[in-house]
Amino acid sequence: MAVNVPELQALLPITGVRIGTTNAGIKQRVRDDMVVMIMDPGATVAGVFTQSSFRAAPVKLAAARLQQGRALVINSGNANAATGQPGEHDAVAVCDAVGASLPDIDGSQVLPFSTGVIGARLPVEAMKKGAMEAVQRLQTDNWNAAARAIMTTDTVPKGRSLTVNTDKGPVTITGIAKGAGMIKPDMATMLGFMAMDAAIPQKVLQGMLKRVADVSFNRVTIDGDTSTNDSLILIASGKGSVGITNEEDPCLVQIERGLTSVAQDLAMWIARDGEGATRFATVRVRGGKTSADCLKVAYAIAESPLVKTAIFAGDPNWGRFCMAIGRSGADVDPDRVTLFLDDVCIARNGLVAEGYQEKDAARVMAQQELTVLVDLGFGDIEEWVWTCDFSYDYVKINAEYRS
Amino acid sequence: MAVNVPELQALLPITGVRIGTTNAGIKQRVRDDMVVMIMDPGATVAGVFTQSSFRAAPVKLAAARLQQGRALVINSGNANAATGQPGEHDAVAVCDAVGASLPDIDGSQVLPFSTGVIGARLPVEAMKKGAMEAVQRLQTDNWNAAARAIMTTDTVPKGRSLTVNTDKGPVTITGIAKGAGMIKPDMATMLGFMAMDAAIPQKVLQGMLKRVADVSFNRVTIDGDTSTNDSLILIASGKGSVGITNEEDPCLVQIERGLTSVAQDLAMWIARDGEGATRFATVRVRGGKTSADCLKVAYAIAESPLVKTAIFAGDPNWGRFCMAIGRSGADVDPDRVTLFLDDVCIARNGLVAEGYQEKDAARVMAQQELTVLVDLGFGDIEEWVWTCDFSYDYVKINAEYRS
Repeated sequence: MAVNVPELQALLPITGVRIGTTNAGIKQRVRDDMVVMIMDPGATVAGVFTQSSFRAAPVKLAAARLQQGRALVINSGNANAATGQPGEHDAVAVCDAVGASLPDIDGSQVLPFSTGVIGARLPVEAMKKGAMEAVQRLQTDNWNAAARAIMTTDTVPKGRSLTVNTDKGPVTITGIAKGAGMIKPDMATMLGFMAMDAAIPQKVLQGMLKRVADVSFNRVTIDGDTSTNDSLILIASGKGSVGITNEEDPCLVQIERGLTSVAQDLAMWIARDGEGATRFATVRVRGGKTSADCLKVAYAIAESPLVKTAIFAGDPNWGRFCMAIGRSGADVDPDRVTLFLDDVCIARNGLVAEGYQEKDAARVMAQQELTVLVDLGFGDIEEWVWTCDFSYDYVKINAEYRS
Repeated sequence: MAVNVPELQALLPITGVRIGTTNAGIKQRVRDDMVVMIMDPGATVAGVFTQSSFRAAPVKLAAARLQQGRALVINSGNANAATGQPGEHDAVAVCDAVGASLPDIDGSQVLPFSTGVIGARLPVEAMKKGAMEAVQRLQTDNWNAAARAIMTTDTVPKGRSLTVNTDKGPVTITGIAKGAGMIKPDMATMLGFMAMDAAIPQKVLQGMLKRVADVSFNRVTIDGDTSTNDSLILIASGKGSVGITNEEDPCLVQIERGLTSVAQDLAMWIARDGEGATRFATVRVRGGKTSADCLKVAYAIAESPLVKTAIFAGDPNWGRFCMAIGRSGADVDPDRVTLFLDDVCIARNGLVAEGYQEKDAARVMAQQELTVLVDLGFGDIEEWVWTCDFSYDYVKINAEYRS
């Protein structure tokens, strides 16, 4: 069950972006599993994608078509990954079906996104039919339906809207994401789609999306397993009142702050809804010699099965944190290491802190949310990642998925 | 439960090596938890140790004292790790107690080894008393008792003896090891002790041990978590009929072959008795551009929670293998990748193999033992690692350990 993910509110429409969803029968479930998203002419699209060398067919295609993108077609239930050349042809066929249903869009302007089981061919005919159905249902206020249609093992839909009041006027932002398992984005989440009504040149938009992803989706790890399909898309429809022409515009900072807020919430909700999650943890590491060293330690802790099962058990078995710090590969001097769980100092300079009582740490570990803070003692650099615990249900979900 | 680990046979004594065990009350259990091992004068000792930067106090001490080693003192139940300077004093005190109980051995010639909970101080007084008791019980045929006394979450003791008939005469080898969790040795297993009766100079012995460890204990990963205490020790007592004086002696190759056989069995048994293990898997990767690339892919597969839960479920969800290959960081061209489960070819050149039927892979996955073979398609280099699956019991054991 998701740890403190707020119920999905009514998401704000973005002028210039229309969405249709349908049940194409890709999964056995009764809910929608296909989304078509159309941008009016003039929109710009940015994207960041998985760093896996086993990039799925839709990821290759979407990345190649970013500059000319006018529509997205998204499906859950089948990842169209490890499907080789035939898989690419399948993705092209589905894109072409979307293009054929629309008067002013060509199939080559459609970007495909898929999530689900790896290694199976797409049900192309069903999806062509689905694409045509979804196009019939295009509306600007379909974001909530889309947030539901992209779910796989997620237990709750994830989406957030925000209006930023910039010096030039209001910018409306809406984002949706799905995650749950196979989550350690290298550049993006499993699937995330954000749109806003400002007008922003593609190059500027792309740079901004990279920065936003680096402090949001790229900070989530559930099982250390990077998907073949991670994709994060940002659309600037250009149909609102705010226009940006260059990197130096001070309004860009205001917009980026808003986007970061939406993206960080979506990213945290992915960790909070991690497969089998019962607790949510923020791992903060400061005082490393470099930012990379801080992240190495943070990931070593956040991905250690021994740490994650201890968090599940609510057991302040802090030796496991030391083990993870030690094996991280970062430059570590144990005699400088300090370890906190929330406000409880467990270890200082590499050994148990004076006055430390296990009951204090046990109180923190019993919470649904906690912060692990490691100070490596070399300075002020700080990094963080978000993660969840490792429960019986993680094993259950992943042993039974597909069956 | 351990997957096909043979019952412990009577281990052969090594002339010149005497062992005593006792219950020092370090753990709550009723079985022995302390071992003292004494070498007669003239023995040489080699060792390889964890690469963790959070090296436990006993590891630091044992590594520093390798050249002068005349005795080992080993305890389970407490790792004496993350205990700082006080922990080093504790280890010295226990070593000194062993030295004080023996007429011809000084405390500085005693090497300490600890395994168990991290972050707690050793019960030094109880261990001093235990050391003296163990010394009273020294015998050459106590290897079986020692194999039991070093266990923590292991479900079965692990030991093997072998007599190698070299051109110069027989060499008797006996080894014991313990593992189970926090296992991804960087240079050694959690704890392994091997001895033989040949005479071998320390420098030659050390080189041989490093090579043996690299193809045995260093090929095991259970949870990717490297311990703070991993240590592997090799003793050459010099009291048998075979003497080696230099690296070029052809008998050395014969001895190394025997040692490798013992070490590989012990290492495999550690994976077979991994925490919660229900299946044992060998992950072979060939055709990488480098040996390092083959190992990256092998570890990415062997440590992926998604792969390990699929193996637990007996589910041939082969997309998860592709995911792991893709995220390994190795140089991979998906269009060249071939994947086998035992003799069943699942994927060829990056997509599902012609004639592949899921029931064939399901048959392999239902076995207690299986081999995952990945061919990256670039040549003939091959590497492998041994691992086990990831079950409900892994979570149970690690959520409940200590409690």
